[in-house]
Amino acid sequence: MRYAILGTGDVGRTLGGKLAELGHEVTLGSRTKDNPTALEWARSAGAGARAGTFTEAASSAEVVVNAVGGQVALAVLEAAGAAQLDGKVLVDVANPMRFEDGELRLSPVESDSLGEQIQRAFPHARVVKTLNTVNSQVMVDPSLVPGEHQVFVSGEDTGAKAQVTSMLGEFGWPPHRVLDLGGIRSARSVEMLLPLWLDLFRHLGHAEFNLEVRRGH
Amino acid sequence: MRYAILGTGDVGRTLGGKLAELGHEVTLGSRTKDNPTALEWARSAGAGARAGTFTEAASSAEVVVNAVGGQVALAVLEAAGAAQLDGKVLVDVANPMRFEDGELRLSPVESDSLGEQIQRAFPHARVVKTLNTVNSQVMVDPSLVPGEHQVFVSGEDTGAKAQVTSMLGEFGWPPHRVLDLGGIRSARSVEMLLPLWLDLFRHLGHAEFNLEVRRGH
Repeated sequence: MRYAILGTGDVGRTLGGKLAELGHEVTLGSRTKDNPTALEWARSAGAGARAGTFTEAASSAEVVVNAVGGQVALAVLEAAGAAQLDGKVLVDVANPMRFEDGELRLSPVESDSLGEQIQRAFPHARVVKTLNTVNSQVMVDPSLVPGEHQVFVSGEDTGAKAQVTSMLGEFGWPPHRVLDLGGIRSARSVEMLLPLWLDLFRHLGHAEFNLEVRRGH
Repeated sequence: MRYAILGTGDVGRTLGGKLAELGHEVTLGSRTKDNPTALEWARSAGAGARAGTFTEAASSAEVVVNAVGGQVALAVLEAAGAAQLDGKVLVDVANPMRFEDGELRLSPVESDSLGEQIQRAFPHARVVKTLNTVNSQVMVDPSLVPGEHQVFVSGEDTGAKAQVTSMLGEFGWPPHRVLDLGGIRSARSVEMLLPLWLDLFRHLGHAEFNLEVRRGH
């Protein structure tokens, strides 16, 4: 599969590295062609790894992953170009967070979500929200945390969710640990987990944790 | 221990019933002295169970539990009387939710929480937020759900959190399954779990579930 990863931060490099390791062609997209972080990543991530602009990355890809900060995601996708996203699976792993005077703020929150904003702005993309509830290391190696803990998928397109579930399976998340929460509106629920994630991070002192939904029947 | 449970809904009656069964004195508080639901509850809940007004319930209690809907909680606590809450442990189990045109809305959310609102309005009460993340049946019988799933406590007063942890222990939550998230500000995190709880309720088709924090180390 040909993937575009938009964003050269920890999440983008970790997801891109894992996908390249799995044998996929991966272009790490950034604002400029000569982004040193992206070039260094491409050198070290193996045969299928390339660096390029957002547009170059998205145009060659079958699946596009939004791995930039939530506050710039719409601008970055706009820079990639709506035409490059049409009909493609667009995986949104971002949280719409920012720190304001040392306080975590989420925006949008409760009555809207980043996942929905992206789907509205790019109505021909097949948006799937997933993986935003775990640390980047856990995203690509769930065995770092014991137990049958889960990830979630939210989106309007059943085929796109099936394709993302398959990608998650390659990362180590078997299908029964991928909970389909419904349409893209449920991106609100998983984005609103972020404050609890941060409180747990403070409580535990590390990021190697996840939630397991336990059920009585 | 003498408990006041404010609210005669499912949560109030379930918590009050369990506390009475455990041998505590429990007054179920409502707006009026002759609330039929409260009187019926008191008749059936055993020797230690009484019904009364919000003020009567709170004045006789050592621990007060807010189990009314989040949108009326401040008004109900005002009706109980600030003087009746001074110095007491005030357990807030409510979610500030309402349905608007069939949509769930949370208010306050993200930049504030019901737990914080209550602590600000009643600065001499020792507010502890807990149990709002599980269904009433699971609150008083965690064994309905398998696994080492947890509940959270949030509050400024360490002694009050210890007392609530002890009450939770009587319900069946051992201390290692009570996660202290910190000050009352962390009520935001647990209140913001409600949309995910509702999505999971729809996904699973029942309310007998809870989250278990799994950790890598």
